[in-house]
Amino acid sequence: MNKVFVNIALSLDGYLAPEGMTMADPGHKNWDEKWGALMAWLLNQQYMREKLKFGPGGETGPVNDMVRHTFERTGANIMGKRMFDQGEVSWPEEAPFHSPVYVLTHEKRDPWVRPGGTTFYFINEGPERALALAREAAGNRDIRISGGADVIQQYLNLGVVDELEVALAPVFFGSGRQLFENLNEPAPQFSIDTVLDGADATHLRYVRL
Amino acid sequence: MNKVFVNIALSLDGYLAPEGMTMADPGHKNWDEKWGALMAWLLNQQYMREKLKFGPGGETGPVNDMVRHTFERTGANIMGKRMFDQGEVSWPEEAPFHSPVYVLTHEKRDPWVRPGGTTFYFINEGPERALALAREAAGNRDIRISGGADVIQQYLNLGVVDELEVALAPVFFGSGRQLFENLNEPAPQFSIDTVLDGADATHLRYVRL
Repeated sequence: MNKVFVNIALSLDGYLAPEGMTMADPGHKNWDEKWGALMAWLLNQQYMREKLKFGPGGETGPVNDMVRHTFERTGANIMGKRMFDQGEVSWPEEAPFHSPVYVLTHEKRDPWVRPGGTTFYFINEGPERALALAREAAGNRDIRISGGADVIQQYLNLGVVDELEVALAPVFFGSGRQLFENLNEPAPQFSIDTVLDGADATHLRYVRL
Repeated sequence: MNKVFVNIALSLDGYLAPEGMTMADPGHKNWDEKWGALMAWLLNQQYMREKLKFGPGGETGPVNDMVRHTFERTGANIMGKRMFDQGEVSWPEEAPFHSPVYVLTHEKRDPWVRPGGTTFYFINEGPERALALAREAAGNRDIRISGGADVIQQYLNLGVVDELEVALAPVFFGSGRQLFENLNEPAPQFSIDTVLDGADATHLRYVRL
């Protein structure tokens, strides 16, 4: 069966986004600098540079292979409404998913088809229904729980996250959105699978026990 | 000059101790199980087994070397009053520090000399004074900020922590004492130095920029 995975960058103090991160206010508590420090490892990868049309160059080692693998394995995405709303105003016309994306929301809305293979489906029946649809759509590829924090927490609490991939960057945000809060007891159990030691982040891969 | 370092085990959700961790109530939210999962890597090391008189056996690889190095490099410890209070009732007569220990407290108390080279000094003049005394006592060895969280935070905020060593265990505590909160802005900056990939914890070593 296909796998459900999370692949996310995290600050050393556990935030996946700094406080007040909106394009409208880039100066708020230096969120732009913090975000840059969190994501530096990714923007240095050759695969990412190519995708974002940053031009040639970039790293081509195991972290680059991991980034490529993450994109290639993904047959469907699930995300929350807040993440979608932020993306709707900032993604290019060719949204960067190239797969079905299931958006958890109370809003009723027809599917939104983008060029390049991304279609957004708006799901009102909760996370389990979204996952069932995503599994079907993904075929023999995998399902990525894209975010935000609250959506990842919901799927962790459902006990369906098979793989948890965290790029831990040596940066402190101080405030923002914590990834691992609101977990039910007993919490899901993971073991260490692999660790990739990058210069700007440590890539921790955990699998469900 | 000697170095100031932190060496601490951390849950994946950022806690250094689970909620309600007192010997009086081992059943509280399964703190004993959680603590065991956090510390499993350490109790498997040959050096630790020998120290704790657990008998022969144990791992003898790079993690064991790291544990030995941590003990051998330490010329003085600094800790908070809560950590001392918990230890006072649970350490063996030969307290496990074998060096001067500076306890940050408002309580006035004469130095407490234990067999085996540990003497506790009770410092009422704040963290900077404790560090000055610890530096002097440590000679060419290093100063370990032992804990708890609030004391580590104070020294991080003073900008004097040279090395931050975190044993990150794949366990969720859900509640307890968070390590990296209450940091001032701008937060101290670290870069990744080394990563040791253990079976039960990932040993992340950061150095101050």
